[in-house]
Amino acid sequence: MARAPWGCCPWLVLLCACAWGRPKSLDLREDVRNCSISPPYLPVTVVNTTAQLTALRQQMHTQNVSAYIVPDTDAHMSEYIGDYDKRRAWITGFTGSAGIAVVTMGKAALWTDSRYWTQAERQMDCNWELHKEDSWESYNVALRDSDRELVSITVNLVDLLWGSERPPVPSEPIYALQEAFTGSSWQEKVSGIRSQMKKHREAPTAVLLSALDETAWLFNLRSSDIPYNPFFYSYTLLTDSSIRLFANKSRFSSKTLQYLNSSCTDSMCVQLEDYGQVRDSVQAYTSGAVKIWIGTSYTSYGLYEVIPKEKLIADTYSPVMVTKAVKNSKEQTLLRASHVRDAVAVIRYLVWLEENVPKGTVDEFSGAELLEKFRGEEEFFSGSSFETISASGLNAALAHYSPTKELHRKLSSDEMYLLDSGGQYWDGTTDITRTVHWGTPSAFQKEAYTRVLIGNIDLSRLVFPAATSGRMVEAFARRALWDVGLNYGHGTGHGIGNFLCVHEWPVGFQSGNIAMAKGMFTSIEPGYYQDGEFGIRLEDVALVVEAKTKYPGTYLTFEVVSLVPYDRNLIDVSLLSPEQLQYLNRYYQTIREKVGPELQRRQLLKEFSWLQRHTEPLASRAAPTASLAPLMTVSALTILSWSV
Amino acid sequence: MARAPWGCCPWLVLLCACAWGRPKSLDLREDVRNCSISPPYLPVTVVNTTAQLTALRQQMHTQNVSAYIVPDTDAHMSEYIGDYDKRRAWITGFTGSAGIAVVTMGKAALWTDSRYWTQAERQMDCNWELHKEDSWESYNVALRDSDRELVSITVNLVDLLWGSERPPVPSEPIYALQEAFTGSSWQEKVSGIRSQMKKHREAPTAVLLSALDETAWLFNLRSSDIPYNPFFYSYTLLTDSSIRLFANKSRFSSKTLQYLNSSCTDSMCVQLEDYGQVRDSVQAYTSGAVKIWIGTSYTSYGLYEVIPKEKLIADTYSPVMVTKAVKNSKEQTLLRASHVRDAVAVIRYLVWLEENVPKGTVDEFSGAELLEKFRGEEEFFSGSSFETISASGLNAALAHYSPTKELHRKLSSDEMYLLDSGGQYWDGTTDITRTVHWGTPSAFQKEAYTRVLIGNIDLSRLVFPAATSGRMVEAFARRALWDVGLNYGHGTGHGIGNFLCVHEWPVGFQSGNIAMAKGMFTSIEPGYYQDGEFGIRLEDVALVVEAKTKYPGTYLTFEVVSLVPYDRNLIDVSLLSPEQLQYLNRYYQTIREKVGPELQRRQLLKEFSWLQRHTEPLASRAAPTASLAPLMTVSALTILSWSV
Repeated sequence: MARAPWGCCPWLVLLCACAWGRPKSLDLREDVRNCSISPPYLPVTVVNTTAQLTALRQQMHTQNVSAYIVPDTDAHMSEYIGDYDKRRAWITGFTGSAGIAVVTMGKAALWTDSRYWTQAERQMDCNWELHKEDSWESYNVALRDSDRELVSITVNLVDLLWGSERPPVPSEPIYALQEAFTGSSWQEKVSGIRSQMKKHREAPTAVLLSALDETAWLFNLRSSDIPYNPFFYSYTLLTDSSIRLFANKSRFSSKTLQYLNSSCTDSMCVQLEDYGQVRDSVQAYTSGAVKIWIGTSYTSYGLYEVIPKEKLIADTYSPVMVTKAVKNSKEQTLLRASHVRDAVAVIRYLVWLEENVPKGTVDEFSGAELLEKFRGEEEFFSGSSFETISASGLNAALAHYSPTKELHRKLSSDEMYLLDSGGQYWDGTTDITRTVHWGTPSAFQKEAYTRVLIGNIDLSRLVFPAATSGRMVEAFARRALWDVGLNYGHGTGHGIGNFLCVHEWPVGFQSGNIAMAKGMFTSIEPGYYQDGEFGIRLEDVALVVEAKTKYPGTYLTFEVVSLVPYDRNLIDVSLLSPEQLQYLNRYYQTIREKVGPELQRRQLLKEFSWLQRHTEPLASRAAPTASLAPLMTVSALTILSWSV
Repeated sequence: MARAPWGCCPWLVLLCACAWGRPKSLDLREDVRNCSISPPYLPVTVVNTTAQLTALRQQMHTQNVSAYIVPDTDAHMSEYIGDYDKRRAWITGFTGSAGIAVVTMGKAALWTDSRYWTQAERQMDCNWELHKEDSWESYNVALRDSDRELVSITVNLVDLLWGSERPPVPSEPIYALQEAFTGSSWQEKVSGIRSQMKKHREAPTAVLLSALDETAWLFNLRSSDIPYNPFFYSYTLLTDSSIRLFANKSRFSSKTLQYLNSSCTDSMCVQLEDYGQVRDSVQAYTSGAVKIWIGTSYTSYGLYEVIPKEKLIADTYSPVMVTKAVKNSKEQTLLRASHVRDAVAVIRYLVWLEENVPKGTVDEFSGAELLEKFRGEEEFFSGSSFETISASGLNAALAHYSPTKELHRKLSSDEMYLLDSGGQYWDGTTDITRTVHWGTPSAFQKEAYTRVLIGNIDLSRLVFPAATSGRMVEAFARRALWDVGLNYGHGTGHGIGNFLCVHEWPVGFQSGNIAMAKGMFTSIEPGYYQDGEFGIRLEDVALVVEAKTKYPGTYLTFEVVSLVPYDRNLIDVSLLSPEQLQYLNRYYQTIREKVGPELQRRQLLKEFSWLQRHTEPLASRAAPTASLAPLMTVSALTILSWSV
């Protein structure tokens, strides 16, 4: 699943009116609004936000605020947020996961990225201007160079208005993971972070954790406050002599309380404090001779500003974020195992589709439901890791389309089908995309698919020096597309957690990501999208491993742990180099070795036979130019003899 | 010629003592100092700097300065500096082009990058600690997080001490380029920059130019103040209503004065002001309702600080820097032509070496002199574009080694020879590196050479979307080396000027470079260095051109304009893919077409025949694994039929 190339912003209020860009022109389509005619054309999907905006502006007037920013995240800079925190969706009508709203007395606007432009035009009324991502950038610059001032205010103006419509605060139990599913105990993790504090040149006395997966990871605790993410609202202030966990105390069972504090001594006892106390507690802590180490990417401005600058060590990512990024061998084993079972579920679904799509009875939504059912039959399953992208034909060209019960398309042998989905298992989080065609794909579809596959292969098999940044190598996933003038508009991959977030920073191929290191997991997911026609994405999760090179040196490469074959029907073998073909056949051999026995053990014999058929070694074909092709014969064996 | 991966720093003074790292341990070698024994071992190449340091510390005491930073650049952030500005070399003894010295009351240290570590150990006495580049980074961080304060002082302490030893201020005439060698008139350039000012959202009233090549480019003026660079000490304040050129007025002939002011009106007349007046003039200008647009990369802190923040538009690069980066079609034609003539000189030298190296009469220094003689016989030649790197055997492993009359190595048929050199011609600046072996290279040398060549080819033939940054694609020049655990420690390329600087920012493959655009020129120069044994670098200059892709879209690629064949003796053809081989043979065909006629016209028949031999199409060979090789036959023709 691709993540948009922009990060999160802390909650800020703008004390002065902004400069507004020109409104964008619109197509004459019935599914999107048209604010340039009078009266405006509004599709049924649009939400009327006049009442919300009027109330917000009254509040802004009362608070003497000129402009109010409503971000798309929560107090923890979460990428996925609970319904309780969906302020931006409530005020704008736009439900996409990324997008920042700004309201002044005279105007209201939403900034979002290209994945969501169409969706925003379908959901927002004409109270709202839609600004594309690049405008947000220039808006930032304009603000920086002006006399305007960004300040935080302690009361959230949207919350004041939301009232009874607001979803309830989550209250499910917070529970401890079984030891079998943890890489190390929370005590070991706490000691590890404290040892990093001791070694740090600037001698921090505490680490403040704001991101929800930081606290969940540190204590091996989970709950379900955020859809698809087993997190709970929390902060942690880990000092050299105490451990303070801020959360709703009533959600801890006596068993969990004992887990946190059984026979502990002093600095290894967890003090539970109320979630709402965090700001005051941090502020009180700063009165001493202390130094607090934070990761700015996930710390809200509200917490950042209570720490005096001379008592602050501000890195981009906290030591927990960076430590969590590298999985130890037990965590690696756990993640691998979850991918084997996940492959079984996906393969069962693909086999079922192959049988049922030609009957004309399958649609995007019912298909996604069946897949979730198959995943649900796998051991340790705990829900999807994100909303399944089940997209047929032209719907797949919208990179983040998801079907609904009401709005979906029928799957057909005449169209390509893109499936991007993942599971949360107690031992790992998965994320895989496959694109299939059950009929006769066009030559262009085959070419585009094969070039996307080559991108996936070329990046997966790349050997690179330790500590190379993902940004420096991600173009290998694009080269085969670039060669013929094709490309894709999203990132090439993201980190992934152990029963944590499906998008786990700071691992990945974007500029904000940290350097690649042995033990990291990342998705590799090139794609191609033909607007109005079809979409292709091939996504695997890969582990960063040491590469054995001919000459000595510390080099890394990827080992793909997703284990589902690609669609042979869409591969043009003549486009693959011998090395790419060799790599692909080895990958197929790995799938057979790892998933085959699991299918047999489960008596899934139809699926086993499907797997064998779909992982038959591919043989290279003579090149397509007829007049020259006879001069060359490359057998499937000779690929072994190539060395570059 | 490779450029180190760090930029320039403005002149700053550190008002507090710094934290010092541990001294580095040294090898037991006779060519470098050993400060860990008593008395220290100092080779003859070391400079005694005790007197300079004592005098500097007296001045620091007088000025109440705790630490003094002596950078490696001049007031214009020039990469190459005149003797008049070589303060750091005078105070440290170290003459390398990159390296920053810091002196406190108790210590003195030099920070430099890996290219220069050995040289620094050869030239500095034990008054100086040597810190490697990464220490400089952490030192910056330490300063940022501490209470120390960086301030500028108007008097330069080194200049106070330098006295009569200091080289004189340059006084050669400043002259106008002939119209035939300019891409557009200075009036057109001035109008172009003013039109960018008008379009700018923040409405600048002036552009301040500090980099020496900005003023040289804008007015099509040249001189010779900096070795290898046809620049003159100058600043320009280009306002919406005036043009103020700060330079030594006495260096303009009446002809040049007329060139600048012939029949001009008002805002198109150039006002000459004294070089030393610039700070006062800019300060005076800021008293009005103005806004000054600068490029921070090349503006000294001394000028930056006189502009009030609200009157400043600070981009990384000035609009002149960015405009100059894209060559118009006339400039492209001029640069191409200079590369054809430069190839003639380099080929004449390579032919001569082939004849004379086996006689044992050629050394690195005399060879470099002969090459300069050959270049001198080419039309429009105006000196070398940098100090020739003529390095045999193990000397080539030092990426920036240059021989001297006193210290050089004999060329031999048993060793590899690396030649990195370039010329300044009125129509263009050139820079090319070739590595050759006249005897029997080892298998490892051939493999390393071929992998460097593959890197050069793979980056040169890459097709990529318009506006891609060089950083995103430079790994294509490394992949073939990475594959087997090899790499190189320098950047992959840099922009180059039209009779300007051989390293012309902001074009290139590093993180600070701007996105690639049609009309830019960049070097492409992967390498490999085996310490104590040999060095390989293959460098070409390439023009960014539009790529014709199968599907429509704005894509770019490179067109190599350096026209000298690689060494066939070092190419292992079996490592090349059919696409790489096809590319190489096409490049050889281009060399034949462009350089061949020039050699014939000049009656250089021996060279012409050498060129024909060295550009014979290379035929692919069967793969090396004997048992599998017979299965595959790839003829030189079939490469045309591959499409990836």
